[in-house]
Amino acid sequence: MPVMEGKALLFKEFGGVDGFPICINARTADEVVDFVQRIAPTFGGINLEDIKAPECFEIEERLRASLDIPVFHDDQHGTAVVTLAALWNALKITSKKIEDISVVILGVGAAGMAVGKILMDAGVGEIVGCDREGAMYSGRTGVNSAKQWFGEHTNPSRKMGMVSDVLKGADVFIGLSGPDLITASDVRNMAKDPIVFAMANPNPEIRPEQIDGLAKVVATGRSDYPNQINNVLAFPGIFRGALDAQATTITEKMKVAAAIAIAESVTPEQLSPSFIVPSVFDRSVVERVAPAVAAAAVADGVIRKSS
Amino acid sequence: MPVMEGKALLFKEFGGVDGFPICINARTADEVVDFVQRIAPTFGGINLEDIKAPECFEIEERLRASLDIPVFHDDQHGTAVVTLAALWNALKITSKKIEDISVVILGVGAAGMAVGKILMDAGVGEIVGCDREGAMYSGRTGVNSAKQWFGEHTNPSRKMGMVSDVLKGADVFIGLSGPDLITASDVRNMAKDPIVFAMANPNPEIRPEQIDGLAKVVATGRSDYPNQINNVLAFPGIFRGALDAQATTITEKMKVAAAIAIAESVTPEQLSPSFIVPSVFDRSVVERVAPAVAAAAVADGVIRKSS
Repeated sequence: MPVMEGKALLFKEFGGVDGFPICINARTADEVVDFVQRIAPTFGGINLEDIKAPECFEIEERLRASLDIPVFHDDQHGTAVVTLAALWNALKITSKKIEDISVVILGVGAAGMAVGKILMDAGVGEIVGCDREGAMYSGRTGVNSAKQWFGEHTNPSRKMGMVSDVLKGADVFIGLSGPDLITASDVRNMAKDPIVFAMANPNPEIRPEQIDGLAKVVATGRSDYPNQINNVLAFPGIFRGALDAQATTITEKMKVAAAIAIAESVTPEQLSPSFIVPSVFDRSVVERVAPAVAAAAVADGVIRKSS
Repeated sequence: MPVMEGKALLFKEFGGVDGFPICINARTADEVVDFVQRIAPTFGGINLEDIKAPECFEIEERLRASLDIPVFHDDQHGTAVVTLAALWNALKITSKKIEDISVVILGVGAAGMAVGKILMDAGVGEIVGCDREGAMYSGRTGVNSAKQWFGEHTNPSRKMGMVSDVLKGADVFIGLSGPDLITASDVRNMAKDPIVFAMANPNPEIRPEQIDGLAKVVATGRSDYPNQINNVLAFPGIFRGALDAQATTITEKMKVAAAIAIAESVTPEQLSPSFIVPSVFDRSVVERVAPAVAAAAVADGVIRKSS
């Protein structure tokens, strides 16, 4: 509850969005879906929080299908949007094209799945997801349906093995898993100018100081290192834009638009390996994100028809 | 929703209680109970609104039994508390004792039932409930279980007939039904110094000007006549007191304490046939109601144990 109270304050402070935190007593996907459907008439949008994978995918999908207001699972999409924003700017620094890069995502829970999807939508050339048993590939058995879907829609060359194996030659590592899961030698085996987003919080997959000089760009979820990937850069502006446009949903294009707007809040003068995402206190971010999201909603035709 | 937004403001303005209006999409008692149970961890208390009888009785009873926070159906108990407050002062004016009076309640929906119950708890001598088919009495068939209960627990002399019949010789008429359902001649047939609370809103059971000189005290739910019986006199102070005492429920004694506190907000100098309830703008009311309710909670032993 305190986390959600804080988030409601951030919604208001940064986006001018009146948010109210609701903690619910519900265990199953059915219970959560039923609850949110019943409370929906009260709200202009629903921000889901703290629902674990794989239930979160089913819950969000069913709510998106049944409600005519935006439903957004911030743990997934907020993370995905800010990660794409950071990657967008990291690629400028490394002069790589998004369609040419190979990305390894370690951790295929709620956030990892969503990061994978937004990177697909943004045109990333090759994505390989990994869990602690190794790479997701088409045909891998013994995984939940979400991971199965992921294996079937990514990893075109069907790479197998553990994260150390698939990381060889990759351009980008994105960690959404746990502490100390990769080593300096893994990063040394990546492609030239590797980009490492070690976002496990508070203890990243590898500490930035371990790969100082090895990685070209390093980002974490922490405020005490450069390049903090923090959802607050995304959710206030995304909801502000969706509400302003009277959007009935939040589409993939709206999320990609938000990511690009966040990335472009970093001026060319500011952009450097230690400054790829704007400060969480930068109030110009929401002013860029909201109209970009609203415009994408209009372009996608998901705005409420006035009756 | 606008009514509940307004009520949330009144909670805050008069009681310092942070209220949030929630409109839910639910049809059956089961659905409402399930919903409120799931959302309860978010709140210190639940104020129910706009649930029709007889479902409201079952819903409130089940929630009171299953939740350890106050659950209050204002349409019932707010009305009941303020009605008892008004009656308390009207009896001072007519110099009648509460245990001696005979009260007829027209309308045995949510509010009428609750008024009947609080008058029993306050020691009223005789209560007869009426609906449009006539008096409730023990053994009357073809009524819902709530009305059946009411007939069994009131009307000790088993009066039958329509409201005009049972009103003969009664001291008090309380209308919670609809417009123009009693006549001046009905009031003329009441006991000496009749008290008429014609609270159907906006059009009362009888207009005050029709019984000017006939009734000793007249009250309505309207702001353009004297003696407005308005729930805002009750709910902010009741919740403020319950929350201050960390009450786990709202007992009958807490409601009666609230009623007496409201009544006593009218000073002896102010008290007159046209001033039996304080003004809805009188901020001293909540200052009397809240501690009286908190003290009753302590006396009833319904305060949260610190762990």
